[in-house]
Amino acid sequence: MVCIDCSSSSATARLLPMSHQHVALRRFLRGPLNLRPPCCSFPRTFKTLTVHSSASPSPVLAASITSEASAKVIDGKSVAKQIRDEITTEVSRMKDAIGVIPGLAVILVGDRKDSATYVRNKKKSCESVGINSYEVRLPEDSTEQELLKFISDFNDDPSVHGILVQLPLPSHMNEQNILNAVCIEKDVDGFHPLNIGRLAMRGREPTFVPCTPKGCIELLHRYGISIKGKRAVVIGRSNIVGMPAALLLQREDATVSIVHSRTKNPEEFTRQADIIISAVGQPNMVRGSWIKPGAVIIDVGINPVEDPKSPRGYRLVGDVCYEEASKIASAITPVPGGVGPMTIAMLLSNTFISAKRIHNFR
Amino acid sequence: MVCIDCSSSSATARLLPMSHQHVALRRFLRGPLNLRPPCCSFPRTFKTLTVHSSASPSPVLAASITSEASAKVIDGKSVAKQIRDEITTEVSRMKDAIGVIPGLAVILVGDRKDSATYVRNKKKSCESVGINSYEVRLPEDSTEQELLKFISDFNDDPSVHGILVQLPLPSHMNEQNILNAVCIEKDVDGFHPLNIGRLAMRGREPTFVPCTPKGCIELLHRYGISIKGKRAVVIGRSNIVGMPAALLLQREDATVSIVHSRTKNPEEFTRQADIIISAVGQPNMVRGSWIKPGAVIIDVGINPVEDPKSPRGYRLVGDVCYEEASKIASAITPVPGGVGPMTIAMLLSNTFISAKRIHNFR
Repeated sequence: MVCIDCSSSSATARLLPMSHQHVALRRFLRGPLNLRPPCCSFPRTFKTLTVHSSASPSPVLAASITSEASAKVIDGKSVAKQIRDEITTEVSRMKDAIGVIPGLAVILVGDRKDSATYVRNKKKSCESVGINSYEVRLPEDSTEQELLKFISDFNDDPSVHGILVQLPLPSHMNEQNILNAVCIEKDVDGFHPLNIGRLAMRGREPTFVPCTPKGCIELLHRYGISIKGKRAVVIGRSNIVGMPAALLLQREDATVSIVHSRTKNPEEFTRQADIIISAVGQPNMVRGSWIKPGAVIIDVGINPVEDPKSPRGYRLVGDVCYEEASKIASAITPVPGGVGPMTIAMLLSNTFISAKRIHNFR
Repeated sequence: MVCIDCSSSSATARLLPMSHQHVALRRFLRGPLNLRPPCCSFPRTFKTLTVHSSASPSPVLAASITSEASAKVIDGKSVAKQIRDEITTEVSRMKDAIGVIPGLAVILVGDRKDSATYVRNKKKSCESVGINSYEVRLPEDSTEQELLKFISDFNDDPSVHGILVQLPLPSHMNEQNILNAVCIEKDVDGFHPLNIGRLAMRGREPTFVPCTPKGCIELLHRYGISIKGKRAVVIGRSNIVGMPAALLLQREDATVSIVHSRTKNPEEFTRQADIIISAVGQPNMVRGSWIKPGAVIIDVGINPVEDPKSPRGYRLVGDVCYEEASKIASAITPVPGGVGPMTIAMLLSNTFISAKRIHNFR
């Protein structure tokens, strides 16, 4: 097992300012690698500290850290494969029954290599489950009008059930205008404010649940982890992960606290949580001492850190110090192989849901 | 001072199931009186209990309750008057400058006495600040189509800047369809999901902030109570108060937890809060022992309880046991006279904001 570096002390480990969080999250989701210098290595022999094992909110001032990982690994890669298999079967059943093949349109503006890779992966994933993909590549200097014309055409195209504009857009384009142009029935990303409003409101149903938060909740469901009545802490309040994840947990009757860059002593919140979802893009920020024994950890962060031993010169770590957390949590997602593979699986799921809804297929 | 009854023990005081909360909140906001039997009287001589005055989240297991109220009273009646005065001045300035008078249309279906009273109060408040009010009263057996026609006319009427459909509607009408028909530019209640989505999202601005939560935050602002970095607990997650109040607190950089009917031991959350907003419609539910010394309490509940000594046979109390809370909090809204008067003041404010926006008046 590779030793994970978790050296920054919990006293100094602070959340990123929100603008940085956004950058980090966007980079993780769709952007370039963001290399960080490696932290000092955490000693592998841990001392055993005072334990407060009460279920009450008394802060677990320090956690008992044994030398062996005991948490169940929440295997996102395997769950994502299972979901893709289910979608494959359903897409085939739809085609046989009504002759419709779901279609996802992806629009890429400019020639960022990382964006091109993400688009290629989405295309490959569509193919793997039998969903048609339609790709448009526009030059970097395209106008908003040109892009809006393509969106409008896809809005009207009955063979397209989901539309995704690859972010980030070139700086001369207004992202909000562009995303608002995607009709809500095909907004498989689920980022439209009307959709977020429905997600927030009791008695309303969102058209689509945003992919990454949906993936987090799906992992909890598939591992039989109950949410109702649990204390949940979401770290990060981004529009694309933290905020919708909190809304989803609340819809499932968790008591939710959102911790963010302005929260003093975030570890005092996380220590009381039965479920932690972290989405800030800060490598190894959540230490073992931040976690209540038996908590469930969903780590959305995918942070590259320098690693001269790796052939690529870097390796990926989460927001949570996996080595420490896996010894105190009851279940945890690894990075990579946890939430990451779920995002595209949920995109396929949303595209299929859209096709079913548009064609009234059950 | 009238002795407030707060006898139910904190161990047994539970949040209402959400359906009840909705009913209670709606009744408070727009509905009939909901009389409850009086609780037993709380002894007026309190014993002094252990105090944990640390600002850390260590639970204050029991609060120090002295025999004197020490909290500053947050006088909503006075602030609402101040706001109405400001609006009066601004409405007059607008009329003089561009000849436009803001207009609020209120539609009432059926002949519920309480609804008629609320509509009358809104009309009177409009008159008091110089806003035109337009009232439509439809018979109980009107069709959705008839109501929608009036909404559509008001949507198109340039003299109307705000539209309010008095709730509850008769049971044969679909409330969601009706409320969705109000164009978002005139939805001064701010309940449209598109508006709620914008409220939830960073980098977006809601067209209108829902009146009661806006009133809560306005009280904090006007009393110079800082929100940024504070721990806030919202009790209740209704679409009209709890949820938007939580979103507003988060927009101002508080760390927010939402406590609701499925929360186990809600007092463990409230005891850690610097700011508590309660909106559940449970008389005297929040006891002194639920409150951290020095916390600020915004009590949205207006609950009628039986009182044979009162000429009306009942009196109004909040969700918070005022007598206990006022001895431990640093500031608290009374009931009545706290948040209540702010709701209509904020409705007037939203109507004026709408007129300013539509006529591009600064």
